[in-house]
Amino acid sequence: MSSPEELGALAARLGYTLDPAQVKDMAEAVAAAEPATAALRDLPVRPETADPFRGEAWLRGPVSGTCPSSGTSPARPLVTGEDGLGGVDGLSLDGVEGLRATAARLRGTAPAGERVAAALAGLERVHAELNCTIRFLHERAADRAAESERRGTPRLLEGVPFAVKDVIDVEGVPTTAASRTRADAPPAAASASVVARLEAHGAIPVSKDATTEFAVGGPHPPLTGACRNPWDPGRWAGGSSTGTAAAVAAGAVPFGLGTDVGGSVRLPAAWCGLTGLKPTAGAIPRTGVVPLSWTTETVGPLARDARTVALLFALLRGPDGVDPRMPDVPLRPPADLRGLRVALPGGYLTELCDSAVRGGVAELADVLVDAGAEIVPGEIPSAERALPIGYEIVFTEAAALHRIDAARWDSYDPVTVRRISQGITTPASDYLRALQFRAELQAELDGVFAGADLVLVPTTPATAPRLPDCTVTVDGERYPLYAAQSRATMLGNLTGAPGLAVPTGVAPDGCPVSALLIAPPHGEATALRAAQLFQDRTDHHLRTPPISA
Amino acid sequence: MSSPEELGALAARLGYTLDPAQVKDMAEAVAAAEPATAALRDLPVRPETADPFRGEAWLRGPVSGTCPSSGTSPARPLVTGEDGLGGVDGLSLDGVEGLRATAARLRGTAPAGERVAAALAGLERVHAELNCTIRFLHERAADRAAESERRGTPRLLEGVPFAVKDVIDVEGVPTTAASRTRADAPPAAASASVVARLEAHGAIPVSKDATTEFAVGGPHPPLTGACRNPWDPGRWAGGSSTGTAAAVAAGAVPFGLGTDVGGSVRLPAAWCGLTGLKPTAGAIPRTGVVPLSWTTETVGPLARDARTVALLFALLRGPDGVDPRMPDVPLRPPADLRGLRVALPGGYLTELCDSAVRGGVAELADVLVDAGAEIVPGEIPSAERALPIGYEIVFTEAAALHRIDAARWDSYDPVTVRRISQGITTPASDYLRALQFRAELQAELDGVFAGADLVLVPTTPATAPRLPDCTVTVDGERYPLYAAQSRATMLGNLTGAPGLAVPTGVAPDGCPVSALLIAPPHGEATALRAAQLFQDRTDHHLRTPPISA
Repeated sequence: MSSPEELGALAARLGYTLDPAQVKDMAEAVAAAEPATAALRDLPVRPETADPFRGEAWLRGPVSGTCPSSGTSPARPLVTGEDGLGGVDGLSLDGVEGLRATAARLRGTAPAGERVAAALAGLERVHAELNCTIRFLHERAADRAAESERRGTPRLLEGVPFAVKDVIDVEGVPTTAASRTRADAPPAAASASVVARLEAHGAIPVSKDATTEFAVGGPHPPLTGACRNPWDPGRWAGGSSTGTAAAVAAGAVPFGLGTDVGGSVRLPAAWCGLTGLKPTAGAIPRTGVVPLSWTTETVGPLARDARTVALLFALLRGPDGVDPRMPDVPLRPPADLRGLRVALPGGYLTELCDSAVRGGVAELADVLVDAGAEIVPGEIPSAERALPIGYEIVFTEAAALHRIDAARWDSYDPVTVRRISQGITTPASDYLRALQFRAELQAELDGVFAGADLVLVPTTPATAPRLPDCTVTVDGERYPLYAAQSRATMLGNLTGAPGLAVPTGVAPDGCPVSALLIAPPHGEATALRAAQLFQDRTDHHLRTPPISA
Repeated sequence: MSSPEELGALAARLGYTLDPAQVKDMAEAVAAAEPATAALRDLPVRPETADPFRGEAWLRGPVSGTCPSSGTSPARPLVTGEDGLGGVDGLSLDGVEGLRATAARLRGTAPAGERVAAALAGLERVHAELNCTIRFLHERAADRAAESERRGTPRLLEGVPFAVKDVIDVEGVPTTAASRTRADAPPAAASASVVARLEAHGAIPVSKDATTEFAVGGPHPPLTGACRNPWDPGRWAGGSSTGTAAAVAAGAVPFGLGTDVGGSVRLPAAWCGLTGLKPTAGAIPRTGVVPLSWTTETVGPLARDARTVALLFALLRGPDGVDPRMPDVPLRPPADLRGLRVALPGGYLTELCDSAVRGGVAELADVLVDAGAEIVPGEIPSAERALPIGYEIVFTEAAALHRIDAARWDSYDPVTVRRISQGITTPASDYLRALQFRAELQAELDGVFAGADLVLVPTTPATAPRLPDCTVTVDGERYPLYAAQSRATMLGNLTGAPGLAVPTGVAPDGCPVSALLIAPPHGEATALRAAQLFQDRTDHHLRTPPISA
């Protein structure tokens, strides 16, 4: 191991300015990560996955010189036709008409101005208790609502208010990423592709939501402080899409947009009782999103139910012509829910898990089996490596991206610095070995998905972390946040496989628990339909928290 | 700077076994590379190229959700129709019929068995003087020739013998990569995609050719010794596709397949008086090629004339369903040679250059202008950084790939170890900065290509290096090989832009000189047509060397 002095000197030589306390933190973080990295170094590289680009290739499906036939759904536009839903099939149990019905329910009958004003009033009420909002978009939303009311035929999401995590650009509004270094950021020149796509269907952003700093810092960002949980304000809403989840769970808005690099959509969804989707890497464009880690990061929608998430996914998916990583790959047709093969792996993915969480997973499995699914074998022995190796990639890439501000880290959240600074000195050899491992893990998932349509695991081991220390409690024992929270979710970030967090009820402590449906790349439709079936037969997704708009 | 002891300890910790002499070499190489790396660290990162994947995106063209219209040439199959050339247009000045005429000329009239036997006899004669062949494929080639003679209608390249650099697999034949560690390699289970494609058109591999070890070692690989130049056996044939170039230049075979990570097709082409193409990165599949550096490496054909190279490119281009990096991108339509805009950048790309080489570049420019081209402004100020930063990427990736054999480097060529060991300890931060720079350099090329169809520079500053020290002589002054040879070629490896080395005559020392035509990504057709025009009006490509089959 390099000494703290050596690491500090190397970081300085590489162009990063750290003070002695930051160097000490960095060295501790590097030392803590070393055993997993060392173990990976000892794992022989396989020739067939030696090219780290294999990991991207997995997300593109078989390489072929032919265009998708007209019989498959082209990746873009997924939505066509007059209202934008002509070409979508498979995402809803009720077909395209089901997606239209969901949109109609979201639109309601009240005029856009009223909808937006009510959402903002509700947001202000819950914000007073939860600290969930960084900026209210009163004026902008009112202007858009007035435009909306002047239109003739309503668009699909005409006048529907929604929340936006404050790492995603909304045109004319600063993006702070909850960082003091961006407290005075200029207004964004353009909306992120995901915001622009929803606005094109008539939806109206009403808030920029609390997040951990740059979606990587601690639960208490110095710019804003912690965001509390509507189920128990003594707990955290989860990160990093923290304010978005709190606002949707409290009922102030019907849905929101978050981002996920290690679980940051699925974890707050789990802890706030929501349905949250981390799509296949590259399936939803990231243009206009403050970047943290290009390999692992995705944008994802959060809502109460899977039908709303399915509609949003239909509207958000597909290349935007700017994000370089968008594959033009058709959606995988959904598996039949009668005969659905569901794997419930054991080992690392389930061994640390509160009994209430286990109960929820079992209930979801039971409902699927009642509907004709079968439980099949499927283990992912390398899943244990995914968390530390995923973090190694995230922090290495984050350090590379944050070298833009390498002289201003003294103004960052100390937790941000502690986490991403360990990526400054990562040897390329280790980073590339980690990317090779990504392909090895994908091959392992291929093995599981050869015999299974979905993998079902706990989203996260416990209910929401208690403030201020953010430890989580598993069957009465406390565990540190970062060791526990992303055990299952990082598997999806590292491989790129999609994952859907589904609320499965409320634990004895009064807080929600969640199950995670993992699908093969571009297999979101199967997970979304399975969740819809579960929600048709249960009412966990309809429960409202004590703090509510 | 880290001390040799620190670097040695780090390399050991990362899993690489080096002896003290190797550690000393490594430390010297790292120290020599440090100034360029340090300068790049100081260059601010631009947000728009912060995602290193931008570099790959450049090779895919604009991201779009639509299929190439039927009006453009689909990437694959580039060749269709009964003889495989139905869909090709633009690569030959004489259209598809021109490609067919080239194929007919290559086929000749002699039976396949005779052709192959004559090629092998010629190869053996020149090998005795040049040491250009690692393995003669007598039996295999005779078998294929017999099959060939039994066929009815001849295929496009029926019975045409060709040479294969010994880093490219031929089914049933060991691939040594000129390494003692692979002296007893088992026979390859399958041919590389490039070999299989030519075999499918009837061509027959007759030799596995000399190369530097793993296409990266020194001119004197311990397994085989140096390969001499047919124009002057006191000189090197150039590397790393060294034996392939020597065999083709000596007239033993009409063409061969090499690989290029820093100039390894274009440099031996230049020094042996051949036309050699490094295609757009990803345009020709690398499946079945011993990998060295996934970012920079391509397969490329070598032949006497540009018409043969054009035909081979038509047959080799396009996804193979295995190489993960193959973009399904149409060929860029060729620019009209009347009105062709040719940029002749100065600065680093031309400042170290023998007057005979300059004369060749000027002659090529004059011929193009006579035919209607115009010389336009176009400078590439960052080209100076391309060589050291390109090497940093090559050696870092090579070290990652060669960790498979990290305990056997004591059997490697010491030059191989000296070169690739400097990549063991590269910080990921530097490697990623280099990939960001790749996208910055691509943007600079975009600026040039906005006003120019082709860039014309010297392929390499001087005629072939003298053995044994392999220095090159520029206007009477000697320069070390690695500092001089790849000054212009690495630009294409780092960015992925295609480059065509074109022979422009013989210097007063009796050895060939060469000019390099650089095109935008997938713009090979323009470079190939310009070279054909030049070769229609000059006879440099027809000159034969003193040592000839």
